[in-house]
Amino acid sequence: MVEPRVYEAMRQPIVSHVDPYFFQVAEDIHRLLALVFGTRNLFTMVISGTGSAGMEAAIVNFTDPGARFAVFANGYFSDRITDIARRQGADVVRFEKPWGETFGEEEARAFILRERPAVVAYVQAETSTGAWQNGKAICEAAHEIGALVIGDCVTSLGGMPVEVDATGIDIAYSCTQKGLSCPPGLAPITLSPRALDKLRARSVPARSFYFDLKLLDEYFQGAHRYHHTAPITMFYALREALAVIAEEGLEKRFERHRRNHLALVAGLEALGLRMHVTDPAQRLWTLNTPRVPEGVDDLKVRKRLIEEHGIEILGGFGPLARKVFRIGLMGASSTAENVRTLLGALESALRA
Amino acid sequence: MVEPRVYEAMRQPIVSHVDPYFFQVAEDIHRLLALVFGTRNLFTMVISGTGSAGMEAAIVNFTDPGARFAVFANGYFSDRITDIARRQGADVVRFEKPWGETFGEEEARAFILRERPAVVAYVQAETSTGAWQNGKAICEAAHEIGALVIGDCVTSLGGMPVEVDATGIDIAYSCTQKGLSCPPGLAPITLSPRALDKLRARSVPARSFYFDLKLLDEYFQGAHRYHHTAPITMFYALREALAVIAEEGLEKRFERHRRNHLALVAGLEALGLRMHVTDPAQRLWTLNTPRVPEGVDDLKVRKRLIEEHGIEILGGFGPLARKVFRIGLMGASSTAENVRTLLGALESALRA
Repeated sequence: MVEPRVYEAMRQPIVSHVDPYFFQVAEDIHRLLALVFGTRNLFTMVISGTGSAGMEAAIVNFTDPGARFAVFANGYFSDRITDIARRQGADVVRFEKPWGETFGEEEARAFILRERPAVVAYVQAETSTGAWQNGKAICEAAHEIGALVIGDCVTSLGGMPVEVDATGIDIAYSCTQKGLSCPPGLAPITLSPRALDKLRARSVPARSFYFDLKLLDEYFQGAHRYHHTAPITMFYALREALAVIAEEGLEKRFERHRRNHLALVAGLEALGLRMHVTDPAQRLWTLNTPRVPEGVDDLKVRKRLIEEHGIEILGGFGPLARKVFRIGLMGASSTAENVRTLLGALESALRA
Repeated sequence: MVEPRVYEAMRQPIVSHVDPYFFQVAEDIHRLLALVFGTRNLFTMVISGTGSAGMEAAIVNFTDPGARFAVFANGYFSDRITDIARRQGADVVRFEKPWGETFGEEEARAFILRERPAVVAYVQAETSTGAWQNGKAICEAAHEIGALVIGDCVTSLGGMPVEVDATGIDIAYSCTQKGLSCPPGLAPITLSPRALDKLRARSVPARSFYFDLKLLDEYFQGAHRYHHTAPITMFYALREALAVIAEEGLEKRFERHRRNHLALVAGLEALGLRMHVTDPAQRLWTLNTPRVPEGVDDLKVRKRLIEEHGIEILGGFGPLARKVFRIGLMGASSTAENVRTLLGALESALRA
C-alpha cells in the first residue's frame, strides 16, 4: 500500500536531472535514508532501478574476477547473490542451510576465517523464508580478515531496525516498495567509509557502467557530473515516502511493525498454525511465514482469501512451495485492523 | 514536457509485478512501442532503468570478452558505447569523425568489411551534436558478415521515424523522457529475430543479471517467470504516453516535429545563425544545434533566456563546448508557438 500523498508527489512536474532542484531532492533522500538505514555513511543514495539493481550494484563494484566471495545461503535471494557474483567471475563459496534456518555466531565466524573471502554476503531479511539474520558476528569476523560485507536489507528497511553502522554492514541495499511504502523504482544503497575508500581506490572500472558507484558518487555527492538520467518522478515519490516515515517517527514505526507482527503470530498460533521460523527472535516483522497445516491445500486457501475476502497472501516457493504461507505486514499495510481482518478471513478459509 | 494525463496515469494503484493486470499493461506497451519503433519484432519491451540502462543491456547481452566490436564514433554517446563495450572486455575498433559529422555509405561499408566485427554500434540520433545517422548501409554491410547491429535511438524515438525493420537494426534502445514525452524511468528496447535467436542460443549467461534479456524474455513474453520487480508506476506512465502518441497518429506526429524543426532552422538562419550539422537531411528534428556566433558568449545568452524568458536551452559539451546551442523540440514541446517564442527570445538575448 502506498500513501495517497506519495501518489500526489509523483504529479510534480519533472525537472532536468542536473537541475539544482533535483539535487536538493536527492539531498533530502540522502538524509532521510541514512536515518532509516541507521547509518552516518556519507554515501547513502539510490540506484536507478528496482531492488535487484541494488543487489547487482553492490556486487559488481566490489567483486573482481577470481576474488573469493562467501555467501550465507539460506533462501532465494542468497541464491540470486550467488548467481550475480558468479556472473562477475567470482570464486563463490557457500555456507548452506535449509531455507528458513539462520546462522549462529560461532559457525558463521568459523566459515569466514576458514574461507578467507574478499567479500561476504548475507541476507538480513529473507523474503522467501521470513527469517531475520543477525549480522554482527558475520561483520566482525569479516572485518578481522579485511573483507567487506554486503547485507541484503530489501525486506527490512523501513519496517525493522536495519542498523547498518551498529551491525557493521559495509554495503547495504534495499528496495522502495516494501517497508518504505513507495512504488517500486529505486534501490536505496549505502556504503561504509571502508567500502567507499575501496571504491575510490579502484583502478580498473567496474564491469557495469550503469551501476558504477564511483561515477554515481561523482554525480550525486561530488561535482554533479552527468552520469545518467535519473527517474525523477520516483525520486519525488521516495522523498515523500521517507517524509511520511520521519513524521511517524522511526521508533514508533518499528514498534508498530513489531506489535502487529506479534499479534499476527499469536492469532495464527491460536488457529493452530506453526511458524516456519521457530525462534521468535529470528522472525521478520514485515513478512510472516506460518506453515501450511497438514492436509490443507495452500492454493485453495489463498484462492478463497482473494475471492471471498479480497486479501492477497503469497505462497512459498522453491523448497518451501506448498509448505508455507507468506503474509506481508509492511509499511502502511502493517495495521492492527489488517491483522484482525486477515485472521478472521484465514480462519474461515481454512475451515471451508 | 509531460502531458497531464500521463501524470494522472501514475496515480493508479500499484499492483504486483506478477499480477495479470501488470502483464496486460506490458502487452499494451509492447504493441504500441512496436509501432513507434517501426518494427514487427516479437521482443519489444522495456528495461527497468533509464536510457543508459538500455544501452548497457544492448551491449552486455551481445558482447563477449574478446569479441570484436565496431563503433561509429562521432559524438558523446558513441564514446559511452565504447566505454561499456570495453568494460565487457570487447576488442573495440572505432571509426572516428569530428562531432556532428556523419558516415557515408561507402566508407561505413569499407570499415565494416575491413574490421569484420561481431557487433556494430552506431547512434541514429546523437543528442550531443544534433546529427542523424542513416543506418541502412551500416546494417547491410554488418549483415553481410554475420554481425549484429546496435542502434541508439534515444533522441529519435517518438519524434522521427526510427524504422527499425526497414533500416535493419538488430538491437534498438531508447528512453522515455524525450520523444515519448513521459518521465524518465524506462528504456524501450527491441530485438530483431536474428538478435533474439542469438540471445536464446547463448550458453554462457550474460555478465549482468539485472539486464539479462534472456530472463526478461521469459518474464515478459514467455512463462512470466519472476525476474525482478518492475517499476509499475512507470509502466502506467509509458502506456499512457504511448496512447497519446497513437491518438495523434504517428505520421501526423512526425510531420509536426519535421515542420517545427524546419521553422526553427529557418528562423535561426534569419537571425544569422548557422547550423552545426550542415546537411539538412542529417539534422535531427528533435534536437537542433545552431553554432554560437563569433564573439557571442553562449553562457550569457542562455542565462538571459532562462532569467528573462523562462526558456531553457542547453549548451554544447566536449569538443562542442561553447560552440553550439542545443535546442530541444520533442514530443509535447514541439509546437509552432514554442518555436516562435524561442526565436523572439533568442533574438533579444543575442542583441543584449
